[in-house]
Parts: sequence; C-alpha cells; structure tokens
Amino acid sequence: MSRLVGTLAVIGVGLIGGSLARALRQAGQVERVIGCGRGRENLERAVELGVIDSYTHDVGEAVREADMVFVAVPLGAMLGVFEAMCGNLRDDAVVTDGGSAKASVIADFRAACGKHAARFVPGHPIAGTEHNGVEASFAALYRNRRVILTPEADTQKEASERVAAMWQACGAEVVMMGVQRHDQVLAATSHLPHMLAFGLVDALARMDEHDDIFRFAAGGFRDFTRIASSNPVMWRDICIANREALSRMMHGFADEMKDLASSIEAADAEHLLAIFERAKAARDAYVDGIDDSG
Amino acid sequence: MSRLVGTLAVIGVGLIGGSLARALRQAGQVERVIGCGRGRENLERAVELGVIDSYTHDVGEAVREADMVFVAVPLGAMLGVFEAMCGNLRDDAVVTDGGSAKASVIADFRAACGKHAARFVPGHPIAGTEHNGVEASFAALYRNRRVILTPEADTQKEASERVAAMWQACGAEVVMMGVQRHDQVLAATSHLPHMLAFGLVDALARMDEHDDIFRFAAGGFRDFTRIASSNPVMWRDICIANREALSRMMHGFADEMKDLASSIEAADAEHLLAIFERAKAARDAYVDGIDDSG
Repeated sequence: MSRLVGTLAVIGVGLIGGSLARALRQAGQVERVIGCGRGRENLERAVELGVIDSYTHDVGEAVREADMVFVAVPLGAMLGVFEAMCGNLRDDAVVTDGGSAKASVIADFRAACGKHAARFVPGHPIAGTEHNGVEASFAALYRNRRVILTPEADTQKEASERVAAMWQACGAEVVMMGVQRHDQVLAATSHLPHMLAFGLVDALARMDEHDDIFRFAAGGFRDFTRIASSNPVMWRDICIANREALSRMMHGFADEMKDLASSIEAADAEHLLAIFERAKAARDAYVDGIDDSG
Repeated sequence: MSRLVGTLAVIGVGLIGGSLARALRQAGQVERVIGCGRGRENLERAVELGVIDSYTHDVGEAVREADMVFVAVPLGAMLGVFEAMCGNLRDDAVVTDGGSAKASVIADFRAACGKHAARFVPGHPIAGTEHNGVEASFAALYRNRRVILTPEADTQKEASERVAAMWQACGAEVVMMGVQRHDQVLAATSHLPHMLAFGLVDALARMDEHDDIFRFAAGGFRDFTRIASSNPVMWRDICIANREALSRMMHGFADEMKDLASSIEAADAEHLLAIFERAKAARDAYVDGIDDSG
C-alpha cells in the first residue's frame, strides 16, 4: 500500500514538527522520518520517543533523500535553513513550512532557493500550545484544526495537493488563502493577542517590583496571560516577520483602547454596555462554534 | 457552640453571595441565611439548593434581623440597596460588600447611610468565574483566595474583625489595604485585562462581519478571551465606579502598545526579546506561585 510520504525530513523537531511526524506515523502515511536540529538531547529524545527514525545536525544531509520536507523553525531561522537545503533537494521534493507569518517565509525561500520555488508550498497549521520541544508533541495536535496554505501563482498544483493531503491525513481541515490575507488575519487573531498578553505581564512585572501586585490577580488572570508563557524567540521572529500588518493592527487597537478609556472617563454607561454585550455575544458564539465542531 | 454569624442577609444571591453562604454553612459558622434579590426563580433555586433558608424581594425586610449583611450586587445597584436597608438595620449589624472597586462603594454607603458608616467594612473577595447566578456558586470558591478589606479611619475595629473572621472561616486569606491602593491594584490586575479582552473580541467581531476571522483563532484565543464572557452589566458598573484609576491605566497601556508597535516596525530584535523574556519569566513565576500555594 502506498503512503502519502516516503521519506519526511523534519527541520526543527519541536512541538509543531514532532506532532506532524507523530500524526503521520499514527495514520500510517509515512515510511521514514529524518529529524534535523541543533540540540542533540532533544533529537535523541525524539528517537527514543519514536517520533523520528534518525537525526543529523546538517540540513543538507537531512533533506537529501526526502520527498517531503517540513521546516518548523523560528521565522528568523528560515532563510538559513533554506540556504542550507537548496543544493541538496531532490528535484521532486516538496518543501513546506509551519511559520506563523507567510510573506516573509516566501521571500526567504525565493531569495535562498528560487530554482525550487514552484515546489515550495507555504503553510501554517493553526495549532499549538505554550509548551515547546518534542516532549510536548502529540499526534492529535492537528485533529479538527485548520491548516492554512498560501500557494502562489507559480506554485505547482501537484505540490500543493500533496501538502494538503498530508495535513488532511493528520485530521486537519485545509484552507487555501492569499498571503496578504493570511498575514492580516493572523495579526488580528493571534499576533495582537500575544502582544497584549506579553505587554500586560511586562507592565505588571514592572509595577510589581515595588507593589507586589501579582498576589491580587484573580483566577481569570491565569488564563488571560497563558500565551505570555510562549517562546520569546519565536515571538520576536513572528513580530519582525509580520511587522507591517502587526504594527498597524496594534496602533489601531491602541487607539480603540484610548477611545474606550474616554468613554469610561465620561461614564458613558450605554456605550460601555453595548461594547461589552457585543463582545460577550461574539465570544460565547465562538466557543459554541468550537464545541460543536468537536 | 457559638457561631461567627447568627442571621446572615445576602443581598444579591449569585456566584459571590451564594458562595459565601455555602462556605459559611459548610464551616458551621452561620445559623440562618436570608436571601434578597429581584429574580424569583433564582431565589427559589437558592432555597432548593439549601444556599439560603428563605428570601424576600424587600431589602429592608431582609436585613431587619441580620447581625451580618453581605451586599453582592453590581456596583451601580449599591446606592439603592444601601438606601433601602438604612432605616432597618439593627444597631449592632455589620455590613460588608463584595464590590470590585472600593472608593465608590464607600461614597455610596456614606451618602445613603452615614449614621451606620462605622459598622460598614468595605470588602473585595478576589475570586470568581465567568459564570453567574446561584447555580454557579460553590463552597470552595474562596478557599486559598485573598479577600481585601479596606476599612477607614472611623471603621470600628470589632466590625472589621468580625468580617475578617467570617472570610477566614471560608478558607480565605484576609489582606488589609488602603482604598486608593486597592482601586489602583485592581485596575491593573483585573479591570485592565477585562477591557483588553472585551475590546479585542469586539474589534474582531467587527472585522469578522466581512472576513470570518474567528475560524482562524488558535487554541490560546479561547483562554485569552474567556473573561470577555463575563457579565456586561457588572463590568459596565466596575468601569464607571473605578473610572479614574482604570482610564489612567488604559491610557498608559495604550501608549506602551504604541511604543511596542514602533519597536516592531523598527525590527528592534533585542528590545522585543527582552520584553518577551521578562514577561515569560514573570508569568511562569506567577503560575509557580499559585501552584505552590495549592
């Protein structure tokens, strides 16, 4: 029986890369997985856990026999990885990634490996936790999650279809989207919330130095700030990669906060109630939607 | 054996008021609980659940025989409740409340019932969930939580001590604090985060009308926005009651967001990493602190 993927090279064997390997194995859709990364300990653990079959620290070596290459490294490391793989890719290899911003990854791939660009399928699985490393990976991470692919005009259709089929085998729903729209939508739904959480915790930490205020944070604070425990390097890179869409979104939101502050100062009860009711209705509907979709 | 409270009047039998009654009953520290509110169905359910012994819709009647009165209504309803109770309080009754802002409640009590002000002990249990109503109440809500009391210069010491002992019997840690400091600390740790969550969901809901963007929100979004499902009336009232401290805090935070947006635009990698690392460390330490305290 033929499998979707023969040899999969996973560059960056953490939560995202490790979970893809686990899911494909569980689905019986991959023959061999080669891991690549810098940390020996993490890679050896990945072998022990059966997530990968073997590993190397050399990107070129990792991709040499692969028909599918998945790059799951921080956005700031993409360019170097693409450069290292370019001369070693099989002609028929499909390359895809898991980066949270897409315009920058596409630019990096074209700069590093333009000759293979038609077989590069930019992707973004909308899934994750605040934990890192292969220990945190699990086969069900992508089940019922959305994976966005942003192929370009010159992307080969067969390459996009192979990547889509791979994600579907992991239980994900694949959505095709333009690059710009992806970067704007993600700035709103993911990058901005992370900036608010990081920014809030940092602001409180500075106040806390002389005021011990975390003691008085209530239950909701823990949930609200969970995403501030995310990987700082990854988020530095996302911010920079998506800096245009994100900074515009942040300025807009800061202006809205100032408007809201003015309504509060003016004790505009009706306006405040309308905002809070609209927000509660939207959030409750969002949660109902998730729960319905399992 | 003598109990801390003989007859407890709970004005507003919801999550906060209901949980106090349940906790005192479980501790064997209350003889009788009289509930008061507007919704007959909720009050009848409270009797069925054994949270209260009886109920009335009349505040004056509810407090007439009480030696302890706990007011847990939205901040905008406090003044009316204090006015309605004033002529009917026993001379020895202690009155306390659960309001999330304290300067406004104190002003309301003095305006409505100045003659009893020395026996009013302003309080704020730092606990809650996003659910409402007596159905959501439970005896353990206050266990290992902090309750802030903000007595004033003329508050009778014996009254403060009775309220402190009552909360300790519920498993809470009682902290004494000045009114202004309370209102500032809570603006930072609770009111501002709620404004960010309500504001974000509202902003996304407006974008969503033509863009269907909630579909692409990842797992962290659900936790981050949980507090946007809180009661809109309660939050309208909190905003207005604490409008000075909160609007100042919001303007400051919006300015910080704009600074952060500028660092992102400028791709200032070092500065971004420093902020995210500081925030992650503070958030992780906060969670460790909670877990240690059980």
